[in-house]
Amino acid sequence: MANKQKGANAERELYHLLNERGFACVRVAGSGMMENTSCDLLAGKKDVKYAVECKVTKNNAKYFDPEQIKNLMEFSGLFGVTPLIAIKFNRKGWFFTNPDNLSKTEKGLVISLEDIRQKGMTL
Amino acid sequence: MANKQKGANAERELYHLLNERGFACVRVAGSGMMENTSCDLLAGKKDVKYAVECKVTKNNAKYFDPEQIKNLMEFSGLFGVTPLIAIKFNRKGWFFTNPDNLSKTEKGLVISLEDIRQKGMTL
Repeated sequence: MANKQKGANAERELYHLLNERGFACVRVAGSGMMENTSCDLLAGKKDVKYAVECKVTKNNAKYFDPEQIKNLMEFSGLFGVTPLIAIKFNRKGWFFTNPDNLSKTEKGLVISLEDIRQKGMTL
Repeated sequence: MANKQKGANAERELYHLLNERGFACVRVAGSGMMENTSCDLLAGKKDVKYAVECKVTKNNAKYFDPEQIKNLMEFSGLFGVTPLIAIKFNRKGWFFTNPDNLSKTEKGLVISLEDIRQKGMTL
């Protein structure tokens, strides 16, 4: 299965997961292909609102383009929602973290499964 | 031009208009075709957040499916944003209103250009 399709499937899966947890949720049109890559999902309930960047990986760590994370932070700040990174690690399930927990490396921003297990959050 | 295309164009126009007015804004994926028609756009800045249902008409009044407005209200309540109706009247421009200003008729919910001029709001 192509990466793009895997990403879209993960996005839908997370959409339904957020719905099940009582969030109103939308998928953002054109995310992953348009110039204005703000976020993949927006979710809210009561006083909790997230702009979600959604990823899937078969590895034990996930790298991010710093530019994409910068866009997510700026969009979230302007909209007035909390930025959230959601990563589906194959056969391990979903993990969530604030972008602040990503580590800077030469290859970009990264978080390992180990780190997200420790520093990450549940919804 | 087909109605669906006109609707999509109006949605993009409103997206840019909201951006110009300082809102962070997203277009909702699948709006107008999916089962879960929550809203067309989500826009926010500081303490103001809207779930926007976006329409275009060449007439002097616009009708709405009550079910669609119900969905918009429920979604907005759950997400914690303000529901907003945005109508582009051909050659008159954009007008905005709270859904409470729609009138109930046998043909559904409706608002006239005259009414939205009086009762509507600016962004």
